[in-house]
Amino acid sequence: MPTSAEIPLLGEFELIRRFFASAACARPAAGVVQGIGDDCALLALPPGEQLLVSTDTLLSGVHFPASADGFLLAQRGLAAAASDLAAMAATPLGFTLALTLPTAEPQWLQGFAAGLDVMAKACGLALVGGDTTRGPLSMTFTVLGRVPAGQALRRSGAQAGDLLCVGGALGDAAAALPLVLGQTSSSAEIAGPLLERYWTPQPQLALGQALRGKATAALDISDGLLADCGHLASASAVGIRIELERLPLSAAILQLLGQTRARECALTGGDDYRLVFSLPPGELASLQAAWPEIAVIGQVVAGTGVEVVDEDGQPVTFAHSGFQHFGSTHG
Amino acid sequence: MPTSAEIPLLGEFELIRRFFASAACARPAAGVVQGIGDDCALLALPPGEQLLVSTDTLLSGVHFPASADGFLLAQRGLAAAASDLAAMAATPLGFTLALTLPTAEPQWLQGFAAGLDVMAKACGLALVGGDTTRGPLSMTFTVLGRVPAGQALRRSGAQAGDLLCVGGALGDAAAALPLVLGQTSSSAEIAGPLLERYWTPQPQLALGQALRGKATAALDISDGLLADCGHLASASAVGIRIELERLPLSAAILQLLGQTRARECALTGGDDYRLVFSLPPGELASLQAAWPEIAVIGQVVAGTGVEVVDEDGQPVTFAHSGFQHFGSTHG
Repeated sequence: MPTSAEIPLLGEFELIRRFFASAACARPAAGVVQGIGDDCALLALPPGEQLLVSTDTLLSGVHFPASADGFLLAQRGLAAAASDLAAMAATPLGFTLALTLPTAEPQWLQGFAAGLDVMAKACGLALVGGDTTRGPLSMTFTVLGRVPAGQALRRSGAQAGDLLCVGGALGDAAAALPLVLGQTSSSAEIAGPLLERYWTPQPQLALGQALRGKATAALDISDGLLADCGHLASASAVGIRIELERLPLSAAILQLLGQTRARECALTGGDDYRLVFSLPPGELASLQAAWPEIAVIGQVVAGTGVEVVDEDGQPVTFAHSGFQHFGSTHG
Repeated sequence: MPTSAEIPLLGEFELIRRFFASAACARPAAGVVQGIGDDCALLALPPGEQLLVSTDTLLSGVHFPASADGFLLAQRGLAAAASDLAAMAATPLGFTLALTLPTAEPQWLQGFAAGLDVMAKACGLALVGGDTTRGPLSMTFTVLGRVPAGQALRRSGAQAGDLLCVGGALGDAAAALPLVLGQTSSSAEIAGPLLERYWTPQPQLALGQALRGKATAALDISDGLLADCGHLASASAVGIRIELERLPLSAAILQLLGQTRARECALTGGDDYRLVFSLPPGELASLQAAWPEIAVIGQVVAGTGVEVVDEDGQPVTFAHSGFQHFGSTHG
């Protein structure tokens, strides 16, 4: 027991907390009345706005390889969490990070904090609080955003007759997985863009905000296009028809896998963090003028479930391709 | 790869997510526009109010024994997190839970969900989101509250001349730790109330709200009275003088440990989750009339640091008593 006047010695994890508290992403930011340093963060919402909150955990060996570089890992973790804000059309506000670490390794931590700064800046998110504990490596991000009352995009508003759209090329992150795991290799020209999409996905926050009042439903593709369209169909009580030949594919994925396997990747690969949304046809032209990467990939129809059709409108069935999330024990 | 129309089979962790989504604490609640089931929860704040956010992680083997009962563990985890809301005078709003589990054990999970319901109801907090993953047992709670703009209680407002007060008896949770760990035993009469204070601390949310506009600074005692008063002194740039004989002690802790060791426990034991706050003397009478458990334990003085004095005003020094948090690897 310390003497009554003694200042408790700082443990290494207390030092880590101070390290994050002084990170660039923890600096004063719009809407943050009080950041790190008290029992809670204190945030202000503009009048007439509502709060959006989402929590995501990433575990070593389940969501990323245990050997992952801290700089990349921080970016991917925060991006994955922020993508949920994009899906509901949020303006980003702040985030908390609960970080569990087996050891306090200065070089890894510096890389991690630098990666966090990069993605926080790209997303417009301030670090406002968190917790640091010793244990098996994991990260839990809680992201906070704001949206004018009534303008959040839900999963439940899709209407038969809407177009089904995505915010860009699909499948790259899943195609990168064998490269991440060292199961295969490729030229830098092919591997580079795919690995970038895996490690530093860019949450489509600006696109989400642009969809306010236009899209009827939206979500981000984290489980894979088929699975996530299933969520949308179920929440909106509609059917979804995806046209196979309209799936947008990058040059890199086509070079690495060829068209058939690239399409499978686009349908089932997770971790792309592109938005998928339903859009009344009249909204498309003006939106696509500002966002040329938007691709129409199908339609919302009366019915239930998700159907993939070929160019003749015939349902398509695949043999199992073996693509999966890193660590199939997740979920 | 599933055929295009196939609904993905539900994994056991998806079933757990559904299980929590149907828990009593996940039911529609005031301020919750959209709870579990979309990419984010959507919350509304009344006009003129600000948001409070805090994140806490509890790890098996660090913050609680690996054998901990799910019912008790859920209560303790949520209470510990909610106590940060109490410390800043929040009206509770909601929480997210990132739960990592080694296995999906139905009986443990049912107990855990029941415990969560009990504490969520006691705190007035709705479960609005989260994540469930497979891995070493841990829980990260992010709690959300609201407060009229400008009325949150910070650590930084204490003034020389203020009284130093606590919200009730101290040290019980720390005294219970050897009982929790099975290192000692005691009669039910003594062990009962101490174990209750350890497993089901009651966040002082109503007291925190009552302190709005009265207390000049507040925080909750999680690291121990001495350490937390150190935080208060540092943030407010004041000194704190604690009078040893004024520390409120329960009958159970006095019976178990005797006065000297009970006082040491009260000074250094964590996990009590009582509020400690600075109060202008003129505010005491009306507040104590409504909250008779409030105890004045010292004063805020000019200077720095925390000093404990005996009844003659002489500084007190202790030999190390051996009390500590469960799992000293934390922090």
